[in-house]
Amino acid sequence: MFKFLFLFSILILSSDAAVQDFCVGDLKAPESPSGYSCKSVTNVTVDDFVFSGLSAAGNTASIIKAAVTPAFAAQFPGVNGLGISAARLDLAAGGVIPFHTHPGASEILLVVQGSITAGFVSSANSVYLKTLKKGDLMVFPQGLLHFQVSDAGYTSVGYVFFSSSNPGLQITDFALFANDLPTKLVGATTFLDEATIKKLKGVLGGTN
Amino acid sequence: MFKFLFLFSILILSSDAAVQDFCVGDLKAPESPSGYSCKSVTNVTVDDFVFSGLSAAGNTASIIKAAVTPAFAAQFPGVNGLGISAARLDLAAGGVIPFHTHPGASEILLVVQGSITAGFVSSANSVYLKTLKKGDLMVFPQGLLHFQVSDAGYTSVGYVFFSSSNPGLQITDFALFANDLPTKLVGATTFLDEATIKKLKGVLGGTN
Amino acid sequence: MFKFLFLFSILILSSDAAVQDFCVGDLKAPESPSGYSCKSVTNVTVDDFVFSGLSAAGNTASIIKAAVTPAFAAQFPGVNGLGISAARLDLAAGGVIPFHTHPGASEILLVVQGSITAGFVSSANSVYLKTLKKGDLMVFPQGLLHFQVSDAGYTSVGYVFFSSSNPGLQITDFALFANDLPTKLVGATTFLDEATIKKLKGVLGGTN
Amino acid sequence: MFKFLFLFSILILSSDAAVQDFCVGDLKAPESPSGYSCKSVTNVTVDDFVFSGLSAAGNTASIIKAAVTPAFAAQFPGVNGLGISAARLDLAAGGVIPFHTHPGASEILLVVQGSITAGFVSSANSVYLKTLKKGDLMVFPQGLLHFQVSDAGYTSVGYVFFSSSNPGLQITDFALFANDLPTKLVGATTFLDEATIKKLKGVLGGTN
Amino acid sequence: MFKFLFLFSILILSSDAAVQDFCVGDLKAPESPSGYSCKSVTNVTVDDFVFSGLSAAGNTASIIKAAVTPAFAAQFPGVNGLGISAARLDLAAGGVIPFHTHPGASEILLVVQGSITAGFVSSANSVYLKTLKKGDLMVFPQGLLHFQVSDAGYTSVGYVFFSSSNPGLQITDFALFANDLPTKLVGATTFLDEATIKKLKGVLGGTN
Amino acid sequence: MFKFLFLFSILILSSDAAVQDFCVGDLKAPESPSGYSCKSVTNVTVDDFVFSGLSAAGNTASIIKAAVTPAFAAQFPGVNGLGISAARLDLAAGGVIPFHTHPGASEILLVVQGSITAGFVSSANSVYLKTLKKGDLMVFPQGLLHFQVSDAGYTSVGYVFFSSSNPGLQITDFALFANDLPTKLVGATTFLDEATIKKLKGVLGGTN
Repeated sequence: MFKFLFLFSILILSSDAAVQDFCVGDLKAPESPSGYSCKSVTNVTVDDFVFSGLSAAGNTASIIKAAVTPAFAAQFPGVNGLGISAARLDLAAGGVIPFHTHPGASEILLVVQGSITAGFVSSANSVYLKTLKKGDLMVFPQGLLHFQVSDAGYTSVGYVFFSSSNPGLQITDFALFANDLPTKLVGATTFLDEATIKKLKGVLGGTN
Repeated sequence: MFKFLFLFSILILSSDAAVQDFCVGDLKAPESPSGYSCKSVTNVTVDDFVFSGLSAAGNTASIIKAAVTPAFAAQFPGVNGLGISAARLDLAAGGVIPFHTHPGASEILLVVQGSITAGFVSSANSVYLKTLKKGDLMVFPQGLLHFQVSDAGYTSVGYVFFSSSNPGLQITDFALFANDLPTKLVGATTFLDEATIKKLKGVLGGTN
Repeated sequence: MFKFLFLFSILILSSDAAVQDFCVGDLKAPESPSGYSCKSVTNVTVDDFVFSGLSAAGNTASIIKAAVTPAFAAQFPGVNGLGISAARLDLAAGGVIPFHTHPGASEILLVVQGSITAGFVSSANSVYLKTLKKGDLMVFPQGLLHFQVSDAGYTSVGYVFFSSSNPGLQITDFALFANDLPTKLVGATTFLDEATIKKLKGVLGGTN
Repeated sequence: MFKFLFLFSILILSSDAAVQDFCVGDLKAPESPSGYSCKSVTNVTVDDFVFSGLSAAGNTASIIKAAVTPAFAAQFPGVNGLGISAARLDLAAGGVIPFHTHPGASEILLVVQGSITAGFVSSANSVYLKTLKKGDLMVFPQGLLHFQVSDAGYTSVGYVFFSSSNPGLQITDFALFANDLPTKLVGATTFLDEATIKKLKGVLGGTN
Repeated sequence: MFKFLFLFSILILSSDAAVQDFCVGDLKAPESPSGYSCKSVTNVTVDDFVFSGLSAAGNTASIIKAAVTPAFAAQFPGVNGLGISAARLDLAAGGVIPFHTHPGASEILLVVQGSITAGFVSSANSVYLKTLKKGDLMVFPQGLLHFQVSDAGYTSVGYVFFSSSNPGLQITDFALFANDLPTKLVGATTFLDEATIKKLKGVLGGTN
Repeated sequence: MFKFLFLFSILILSSDAAVQDFCVGDLKAPESPSGYSCKSVTNVTVDDFVFSGLSAAGNTASIIKAAVTPAFAAQFPGVNGLGISAARLDLAAGGVIPFHTHPGASEILLVVQGSITAGFVSSANSVYLKTLKKGDLMVFPQGLLHFQVSDAGYTSVGYVFFSSSNPGLQITDFALFANDLPTKLVGATTFLDEATIKKLKGVLGGTN
């Protein structure tokens, strides 16, 4: 009997020391540079570590015929602080995920349906371009411009995974045209003419 | 004309500075704590960033009725230094990925076919256990013991992604029984009886 | 006089900038992925940086004839955020620290009394095993299974140090048998027979 | 005399342990994910830690009326592994540093002459825009699109510093138009019309 | 119309995911080992990312004829979590920034006016000493003792940048003499005689 | 039989992936910012992970009546890349480890014999000073000045552990006086008088 009590005391010690095996994000508590504050471990259940939000297709009935559904720490608090997260890509026939970057993470794409042509551009302006089939992986190094386009006559589906629980997502066109950055300044910093900028601001909801 | 020359000189400068956008592993050159040495950027092609080795099913005709196929830096050198990697899990009906850890990474599992029951155990010995369906994600915090078992009458398939290009993989049974660690020492450090140890050493190829 | 005032103004500036020389953990404030919130520096004293809890022997009168006493951030808040922590091992004659891992840290063992046989197993299932004498160091790489057993006819004492202020501690037997993970699932994921599992669940307080 | 000898022996010990105070890059030896291999410490002199390449103005007689001169690890090997680097910006009247990102670093800009209007765009597409005068600092978070334009009738000069010895530099226009990425694909992934793309490819040396 | 709504829904998703592009420090909220808590992104403006406090000269009318003005996270909360910060050095003729270290960062010095002789000492006690002119850069590896002295007959100005948003600043003389560390202990640990210590304690405001 | 073959194939896969469980330093191969190149895993034995060099007392018959014996990566290559290392302190009666810093690591001191008075000084110039007895731990935050002095009438022994495999060691007196830094410059940057500097240069082997 004595032995058992002692074993349980080890159990308790190791339990005390274990509060940071994980740090499920408490989205309403203070955030730090390392991520969200941790939800109390006593309130954590397996459902904090499971996310079903990527099991349904995103709505591709849009101008890009595509959808991106994120499972970053803000949507899937169980990944907070663990250095990994995910998203789902749906591309209808002719669908496009426009040029974008993830400021804080590298990415791996897994094609699970259809065929996707993906590419990234290095700092040396070299293009790395490939048409991927079901089951193929492609890695996109951190922070570099990349895109994915449908290569099938039907919906293609991919899942992407990131080396951060908060990779960020900056879609170049949205960054340039979907805000109030003055047209003249956009022109000066992109070499695009005013008419082109005005047109894209119109489509994407930008002003000025 | 003058302007163009100048622009190309910027081009060249940025190119010089860009040699570490990525570091495709040269598996035969010296390795450092941060990973493999980098292959010369002039020899890098898009095929270094694409991996098709996970598109085919692993062979599940074994005692565990399951297979793990890794795409770590050693198999997929394009991920070297990028903080991310992958593997494919195939589980036939009744298949099992036994208890294991990844010493250097957190993991996200995506179920793409069938149904998988997965679980992990925290330092506090709490069990986080869930049956996952197609499209579900589950995250396993770094270094903790976890397992996956088939929950379907047919083959289930999952892909796992890691927060490191070299996550490691330590299957508990193999670590305990598939080597020459003396039976007596295994017994003392696991509380298992000698007969059990001898039997598992027999199955897994261990000695002593 | 003028000079002195100026010098003190530098003093104050540098003082302002110094709030993160250290971050003594406030165990009751929010926790982040990087550790505990910092106690106000005005309340910090030298006693926050000193820990005497490892000076006394742990109670080895148990089934394992051994004790582990941690000095992690939860017990020794002065190490919070500093990337280092400690623990004391007491092993009576015949004592055993069973197979375990630290999910978030590498470890160095220093033997200060008696003799300890220690070993770890790599991902390649190789065994690294050695009998250590007083004054010897042994390093255990992050996340790998390892153990320590007494090699003396009297009590051996070791101190272990970790490359994290919150290394975690997962004792394999406790993870497998000291909780409610169903016996059948433990069997499937460890290859152990039901009787063995039931027996160890009994000893370690597990159910199901 | 004995004392002196002993002191020198400490000296030697600490010297042995000091080989990684710094790691001046050997640009011809293998590169790893953490940077260039280290030049032998016996060949290191103070000149490895000093860089005069930013003291002269860059040539602004170009289409952008601006120049960027880097002092990254590839140009200034003394910063290799130290997590910091620099560059000089020269902007003639009307000069522009076009939209660009640094995939691996945050940046601080210091204006030392003239006046510069700088801006960055967040993942939420918010614009942070400011006209800076001599002596002002502005910080640009890692990986986000940003630009700098002259705000003076004469040459403005800025120095930028990065939180990495190899921050990378990806100029959006160059990434999109200064390579062989097919016009049709650029169109699909940027929403720009073919004529605009062809024109910019012409200016920047792109093909296809 | 439908298309536009959909595009805006992507916009909102990416906005949700973007809360950690940056983490402007909220100096009154809890601090963690990774830095200050983040100010709510809805209250962030461009002025959080701009700092004008280094545009004016520091007051050099002091015993050291020099001034250090920091722009660390405590003064410039926009750099919080971004791994970079700055300070301004003013050195009148004969001015001196005494020997000091930054415990948590490497540093680059940019000379913008006059001439500065700077040096650092390695763990091997080697001296790296150079007289820098306007436009020169010098890098000081993390944690090593270094100093800057005026080399001009008029005021020299430098800006320094750090590989951390909270580099710390420990001026050796202040650490040794500007507090209540007993004179006898200072003597024993520095080999200085009591009279010298008492004199410097007097100048720098130390006691005991 | 078939089953066994398959299990061994997993074994081999995991073995391939395991090459970076550890990275025992090859002191003669290229070094990177992350540490020494890795010795081939086929040549690694348990002796790479064991270090007996701290079991014997250092020679304290010197001016400081003390000795520091390091077990950093340069002496104990098994710790290379693992983020931890060690050293032994011997202090005869009256022995002193003079003021010093470790540029790249925090430190924990364990007293194993006698009594040691230890202290560190923060960036705010606050002193944290304590007399430690056998079994006490004290933590010294990264990069801050600290010292240890004997507090017993006989030899005291401590072991210190660092949060880096290459912490560095900069003894302030040696950095200031044991090299060729000109006396006048030492004076200007420390406020010490010429006679004091000359005397210490004499004792410590400095010139100029």
